[in-house]
Amino acid sequence: MKKWADGEARLFGLNASSELSEKISKVLGTPLGAMSSRQFSDGEIQLNIEETVRGRDVYLIQATNYPVNDHLWELLIMIDAMQRASAKTVNVIMPYFGYARQDRTAAPREPITAKLVADMLTKAGVTRLLTLDLHTVQVQGFFDIPVDNLFTIPLFAKYYREKGLMGDDVVVVSPKNSGIKRARSLAEYLESPLAIIDHEEDDKGRERGYIIGEVAGKKAIMVDDILNTGTTFFAGAEVLEKAGVSEIYACASHGILSNNAKELMDLTAIKEVTITDSVEIPEEHRPKRLKVITASTLMADAIRRIHENEPMSPLFK
Amino acid sequence: MKKWADGEARLFGLNASSELSEKISKVLGTPLGAMSSRQFSDGEIQLNIEETVRGRDVYLIQATNYPVNDHLWELLIMIDAMQRASAKTVNVIMPYFGYARQDRTAAPREPITAKLVADMLTKAGVTRLLTLDLHTVQVQGFFDIPVDNLFTIPLFAKYYREKGLMGDDVVVVSPKNSGIKRARSLAEYLESPLAIIDHEEDDKGRERGYIIGEVAGKKAIMVDDILNTGTTFFAGAEVLEKAGVSEIYACASHGILSNNAKELMDLTAIKEVTITDSVEIPEEHRPKRLKVITASTLMADAIRRIHENEPMSPLFK
Amino acid sequence: MKKWADGEARLFGLNASSELSEKISKVLGTPLGAMSSRQFSDGEIQLNIEETVRGRDVYLIQATNYPVNDHLWELLIMIDAMQRASAKTVNVIMPYFGYARQDRTAAPREPITAKLVADMLTKAGVTRLLTLDLHTVQVQGFFDIPVDNLFTIPLFAKYYREKGLMGDDVVVVSPKNSGIKRARSLAEYLESPLAIIDHEEDDKGRERGYIIGEVAGKKAIMVDDILNTGTTFFAGAEVLEKAGVSEIYACASHGILSNNAKELMDLTAIKEVTITDSVEIPEEHRPKRLKVITASTLMADAIRRIHENEPMSPLFK
Amino acid sequence: MKKWADGEARLFGLNASSELSEKISKVLGTPLGAMSSRQFSDGEIQLNIEETVRGRDVYLIQATNYPVNDHLWELLIMIDAMQRASAKTVNVIMPYFGYARQDRTAAPREPITAKLVADMLTKAGVTRLLTLDLHTVQVQGFFDIPVDNLFTIPLFAKYYREKGLMGDDVVVVSPKNSGIKRARSLAEYLESPLAIIDHEEDDKGRERGYIIGEVAGKKAIMVDDILNTGTTFFAGAEVLEKAGVSEIYACASHGILSNNAKELMDLTAIKEVTITDSVEIPEEHRPKRLKVITASTLMADAIRRIHENEPMSPLFK
Amino acid sequence: MKKWADGEARLFGLNASSELSEKISKVLGTPLGAMSSRQFSDGEIQLNIEETVRGRDVYLIQATNYPVNDHLWELLIMIDAMQRASAKTVNVIMPYFGYARQDRTAAPREPITAKLVADMLTKAGVTRLLTLDLHTVQVQGFFDIPVDNLFTIPLFAKYYREKGLMGDDVVVVSPKNSGIKRARSLAEYLESPLAIIDHEEDDKGRERGYIIGEVAGKKAIMVDDILNTGTTFFAGAEVLEKAGVSEIYACASHGILSNNAKELMDLTAIKEVTITDSVEIPEEHRPKRLKVITASTLMADAIRRIHENEPMSPLFK
Amino acid sequence: MKKWADGEARLFGLNASSELSEKISKVLGTPLGAMSSRQFSDGEIQLNIEETVRGRDVYLIQATNYPVNDHLWELLIMIDAMQRASAKTVNVIMPYFGYARQDRTAAPREPITAKLVADMLTKAGVTRLLTLDLHTVQVQGFFDIPVDNLFTIPLFAKYYREKGLMGDDVVVVSPKNSGIKRARSLAEYLESPLAIIDHEEDDKGRERGYIIGEVAGKKAIMVDDILNTGTTFFAGAEVLEKAGVSEIYACASHGILSNNAKELMDLTAIKEVTITDSVEIPEEHRPKRLKVITASTLMADAIRRIHENEPMSPLFK
Repeated sequence: MKKWADGEARLFGLNASSELSEKISKVLGTPLGAMSSRQFSDGEIQLNIEETVRGRDVYLIQATNYPVNDHLWELLIMIDAMQRASAKTVNVIMPYFGYARQDRTAAPREPITAKLVADMLTKAGVTRLLTLDLHTVQVQGFFDIPVDNLFTIPLFAKYYREKGLMGDDVVVVSPKNSGIKRARSLAEYLESPLAIIDHEEDDKGRERGYIIGEVAGKKAIMVDDILNTGTTFFAGAEVLEKAGVSEIYACASHGILSNNAKELMDLTAIKEVTITDSVEIPEEHRPKRLKVITASTLMADAIRRIHENEPMSPLFK
Repeated sequence: MKKWADGEARLFGLNASSELSEKISKVLGTPLGAMSSRQFSDGEIQLNIEETVRGRDVYLIQATNYPVNDHLWELLIMIDAMQRASAKTVNVIMPYFGYARQDRTAAPREPITAKLVADMLTKAGVTRLLTLDLHTVQVQGFFDIPVDNLFTIPLFAKYYREKGLMGDDVVVVSPKNSGIKRARSLAEYLESPLAIIDHEEDDKGRERGYIIGEVAGKKAIMVDDILNTGTTFFAGAEVLEKAGVSEIYACASHGILSNNAKELMDLTAIKEVTITDSVEIPEEHRPKRLKVITASTLMADAIRRIHENEPMSPLFK
Repeated sequence: MKKWADGEARLFGLNASSELSEKISKVLGTPLGAMSSRQFSDGEIQLNIEETVRGRDVYLIQATNYPVNDHLWELLIMIDAMQRASAKTVNVIMPYFGYARQDRTAAPREPITAKLVADMLTKAGVTRLLTLDLHTVQVQGFFDIPVDNLFTIPLFAKYYREKGLMGDDVVVVSPKNSGIKRARSLAEYLESPLAIIDHEEDDKGRERGYIIGEVAGKKAIMVDDILNTGTTFFAGAEVLEKAGVSEIYACASHGILSNNAKELMDLTAIKEVTITDSVEIPEEHRPKRLKVITASTLMADAIRRIHENEPMSPLFK
Repeated sequence: MKKWADGEARLFGLNASSELSEKISKVLGTPLGAMSSRQFSDGEIQLNIEETVRGRDVYLIQATNYPVNDHLWELLIMIDAMQRASAKTVNVIMPYFGYARQDRTAAPREPITAKLVADMLTKAGVTRLLTLDLHTVQVQGFFDIPVDNLFTIPLFAKYYREKGLMGDDVVVVSPKNSGIKRARSLAEYLESPLAIIDHEEDDKGRERGYIIGEVAGKKAIMVDDILNTGTTFFAGAEVLEKAGVSEIYACASHGILSNNAKELMDLTAIKEVTITDSVEIPEEHRPKRLKVITASTLMADAIRRIHENEPMSPLFK
Repeated sequence: MKKWADGEARLFGLNASSELSEKISKVLGTPLGAMSSRQFSDGEIQLNIEETVRGRDVYLIQATNYPVNDHLWELLIMIDAMQRASAKTVNVIMPYFGYARQDRTAAPREPITAKLVADMLTKAGVTRLLTLDLHTVQVQGFFDIPVDNLFTIPLFAKYYREKGLMGDDVVVVSPKNSGIKRARSLAEYLESPLAIIDHEEDDKGRERGYIIGEVAGKKAIMVDDILNTGTTFFAGAEVLEKAGVSEIYACASHGILSNNAKELMDLTAIKEVTITDSVEIPEEHRPKRLKVITASTLMADAIRRIHENEPMSPLFK
Repeated sequence: MKKWADGEARLFGLNASSELSEKISKVLGTPLGAMSSRQFSDGEIQLNIEETVRGRDVYLIQATNYPVNDHLWELLIMIDAMQRASAKTVNVIMPYFGYARQDRTAAPREPITAKLVADMLTKAGVTRLLTLDLHTVQVQGFFDIPVDNLFTIPLFAKYYREKGLMGDDVVVVSPKNSGIKRARSLAEYLESPLAIIDHEEDDKGRERGYIIGEVAGKKAIMVDDILNTGTTFFAGAEVLEKAGVSEIYACASHGILSNNAKELMDLTAIKEVTITDSVEIPEEHRPKRLKVITASTLMADAIRRIHENEPMSPLFK
């Protein structure tokens, strides 16, 4: 990739994304800015920014996975510090957008926390946001600042095609009746058919998954955006197994892997779970059959385009 | 329904929704406020509000269907007038939310017009919004003011159940791979299974619909939120017919019926197209086999609850 | 005129001003940006911007004459798209400012629609506005962003002086008791006296114009800012004729020419009606004795000065 | 006038308007709120509000005549204090709006100070504004809050009619070519004709006034909104005298009477200068032939209507 | 205390302040609102508000001590939910204001996190704030909404006077050279003299405390606002012991007691550490010689006054 | 000091700071911008900016001492003019921040005028603020824009060290129990001990100062931020004299010197009163034993750093 003219740019990797930031920094050939962040015994975060940002375009890299509230405050405080320190622009790179699923009032008196996050970021002084596979694309509209949302499906498509997983003996499966667009998109890249796992209540009021579409004898790839507790993939794999698929794969943009996700994934018949490195996962939470593909080159390219005023559109082809 | 204490309330029906406003006014037992609105020869709108609104809670009823830009400006100007005339609160009742489908940046450099509409309404001075079956529920989050979004599926469910269209020999069909939640919800109310019409390109690059799920021999009910040009229902009916369904019904919350929608609907095999009265349709645009069910009682009840600080939650049961 | 350094500038001509935009583009030697705008069958506008604007200074040219509501929404949507596409600045060039006459609360409960337009533009994200002969100069104060308002009177003055219409046998006439400043200014340029047509009710409650000042035997030039339905000039010409003027001319900055303006102008004794090209007039609405002078050079020069940070003051000399 | 229900209202008279506030307080039968305001030796203003305003509708009466900057800050500080002290609404009654003439950019790089005043008031937290005869009515549009602007012409009309000054042997004169609407309005009330004093430069570059319209033998009433240095009325009277009027009167809504206004008025041929009590004039600045009519009843009635949510429209008849 | 008219009030106790909320609820005779709040495995907070708040005045009680970021987000999300659920006003009762010490830019490029917290609360939609002994009173000015800051010194003064700790054989000691106002205030209530512990570096660069003022033979009461790690009181007690005081007491408004504060307090010569119940302290963190006095009656009275529009001033006497 | 690249910079000295502006202009080698400012007979300020500022970074220098309200309005109007004239950034240099002491609600229903000033400046359009020794550093947090607050203590420390006033036979005295940080800082620079003058009421209710700390036989330097009426230093000198100090000095950042400050200072035993030139003092208000040290080099260096995006941190060493 083209080296960038980083004269006025400063890249900072915050606590949640130190590894990804290092990768992006390497791709761009720009060192990470010097800063430290610590939490006092009363939980308050104190930041020290150890180099000038006056008049610079600043890029802050922070996912907001667990512990989401700490990561969000660290980011907000950093934005405030940047603003007061006279940064020219404050660009936030958020590989994982926490609270993105709370994007509507599903029941009376519910908050819309994703909008609240958007409002907090905006009020703190963000100039622009770069995200990766937002849970709902409408979240872009929660902002009045420019938001560029990169897609991960092309990364997964490339990976599966290289493995030979494509064509008519593969079926792409959406393990829920939402998120079908994502499955649709992967199916197109792989030139494979589509199926959906819907859920209904049985006579005893239990949720029961069943398949809409043809899967028997095919290799199934389940696709989702967030792999959190692992129950969706676990249950999906069970349904697919009964339906006579030959092999099961699963991919998700963001690997949160909380609770017993590792154990569930290790138990299941899924041959390989593929995720990106948008979220950093402690060693002990990684399932055995986990494959991580990197989004760092994609994100670095996007940052470079933002900084050099080049169009982002080639990244969406 | 309970009569309301309308001492401080003033209900105004704007140009796009004069019939619906009359119905709501009757349900509430509250006359519509006196006003006139005219367009000059240069297209500019002039409003005259012919009674005081000082200190009153004002309810403005306006759908923003065709001509959407005129209807939006009329509404914005009315809000401005109300604010300047010292209304206590300005509540907008929008049975149909125009531009709701432009809710994300689908391609580079696209606007998010639904958010723009939200920003314009907010800046003009709206206190609160009441909508009916928003195209995307996330549009609620485009606002920082309270937004109550009523659902139409219970109205359709009630209607079909009364016609005996329910249970296992009915299948609810989503005619696109989006909007499945709506079909899902109707299927639950009718205790019927679900099918989806997905689309793929054939060898010649033509879009071709195919069904995911079982429909043969069943009575199919297609469900969508907006019936605009009619092509979705028309194409869906063709697919369903070939798939061997016994009867075809279709319902949509909002009947825009632009272009040749009437002609398409008259040509198709659909036995009955059911819509609500959220949008006023000129006589000559109405298909022959059209059934309109009213949302006015639901909306009037919601207005009363807003005005009397009663919870809205019973309306969602 | 000096060529400009257009590296970072992008000029877009919107629907209402495609001809004027072409002229400005030619004066500046800068091509118009590639975009398309279409209206769906339900009246909604969809924009496609076909080149990158990331980091560019964008200039949008749009008059907001008939159909004003469509033209305003097209402009607002374009501004939103530009903002989200990371334009550096969004400069609006509005040769004709629709709704400018609704600039005060003339009767109880009236809106101030010109302020509403200002608020909508500002909220959508305009950086700066360039206008031409605003109906009321105070409208500048409806904005907190910089507004440069160019004057047309020097253009008309130059035109009439070249025709020899100047000095004591010419009288400049304000056809209403408002807008006298404009007549005053033209009178000064032409070194001619001033007269005013005031209106009073006769015994039967009919409005009747009469002249304040001396006009008999002189060549009268009526001057107004907006030529809409033509009734003001028509009635003014009648009064002037009776008062014994030798010849009648009329000029107006903005030729809206709605309704039967063409017919009225063709019927009247006015020898020539002069307007600028701020508004595009369909061939069939053009009176026979119409003279259009271009404001494109003036506006192009102003755009260049904005872009190159040169003072605007020489344009006001 | 009807007594008002003042349970939740608190009326405060600030420094510039203590006499007028007393009058309004008497008309309303409501005592003025207890407060003190003093200026330290370094010019800073300190306010003490000596009674609770928690949850009350507060009405602050303050003209912003000389020293305008002090009066404005006193008002802004009072608004801040009211907001922080949890007043329910903060209504400002501004009989004279200082800086109102700086309402447009007349020359390059001029401020629009009247808009700045509007922005400062709004940001400080005003709920609503009540003014008296604004210099330019468009200043209403500088605000997004409700602004009620009362007119003084009916007060002057009543006064002159009672003196028998009306009909065809009276001529209402606008002493400048702006402000003709005000003269027009008085002329209609008095059923008298209208004349205008325009100004032109003579050969030596001196401004010279001349009359447009017929005045000889008539009793002339000059009308203006602000009587500041008195030069306009002084020069106007000279022109009228030469033109052979029989008697000269002059009225202005706001009597600022700065500089040598008293001396000029005492020297002139004007028989009586009539103003309202919108501005408090020190004894030594009052011309000998000055008549002050009170606007306090009008303003008190407006305050009562605001407080009791009665329409303001009857005040404009 | 007077019972309040709670018709329109709803009191909610959030996670950090459930005990204090119960006490306040009892004093007011008003039950706490039904709600639940839980954290998912990925750290995201989900709130359920189980009763209507439409049109109600809502009072949310939440301290923002450890874990401060979680407590702040819980509060912000609750505010968002309340706003969207049409609460009339959203009043936040914050017995302890986290991040209050980050109230200025002490070193280059530091954030002002207390202002950020203020901005976040305001943007989320708070109507009014009630705090208890803010670390710096200027933090009130970080808000444009009304902020009532209650003082704890009168509570401590009452407590010590009842113990007989007052007069000339007591000395009130500020253990740091900041916060002297607080010590000053307690000294006045107890009619006792004042001393200050200042710090200087010794030759080896170690901080060394020394006393400014007379303490020998007196009973010393150290006073601070926040008792966090306990090192200030621990070091202060050492200095006082060496200086020959007869007994040592210490009081602080907010007992955070993080790290080894319990152990330090147990080791020190301080006879009794007195705090309020503004922060809930787990049993295992409580020092042996701890005395907690309640601020619940004071806070309840303040809430009642807010709700009933009674002046707050009697609470400051 | 380094010459600056002033291509895009324009420095304007407003009325309160014309001398200081000249000094800063000389240090920077950049001429002051051409402008004039006058007050009309009615107190209104009119500004003329006589050169273009389009696209320039503008630096406005204005202290807001007496007459503070006029100086503030002049500054606000200048900011408005700059914004409307398309300045790129508007940087305010405020050597003395008027109303800074009204930074909290000390008694019920008090305004927080310093916050109001901050809000007014922000709303008018300031990009950034540079101040000198703010009365309370927390005032930085009243702004969301960058605020750089320079310190004067290093200037005084340098001055006193050069005079040989340092070490153990000097004592730095805070003449009030607030502002101790400032005294602490000077004491550290001079390697001298610290004392505080506290105040108590005697039996007759009179305020009486007494010293906390050791001063006998030492040379005392009182330090304060604002020298206004002079009573603090006068009373402090009396107390110090009685306590047996050998010599008395006093310094204050800002010399307001209102009322009889000159007379008080001339009467007192203080050998020299040292201030900076942040405020311009008329000759007749200057005490005889006054020493003014300039802050112009410090401020000029800060402006240069802002303009050239160099870190400000070296100025704080």
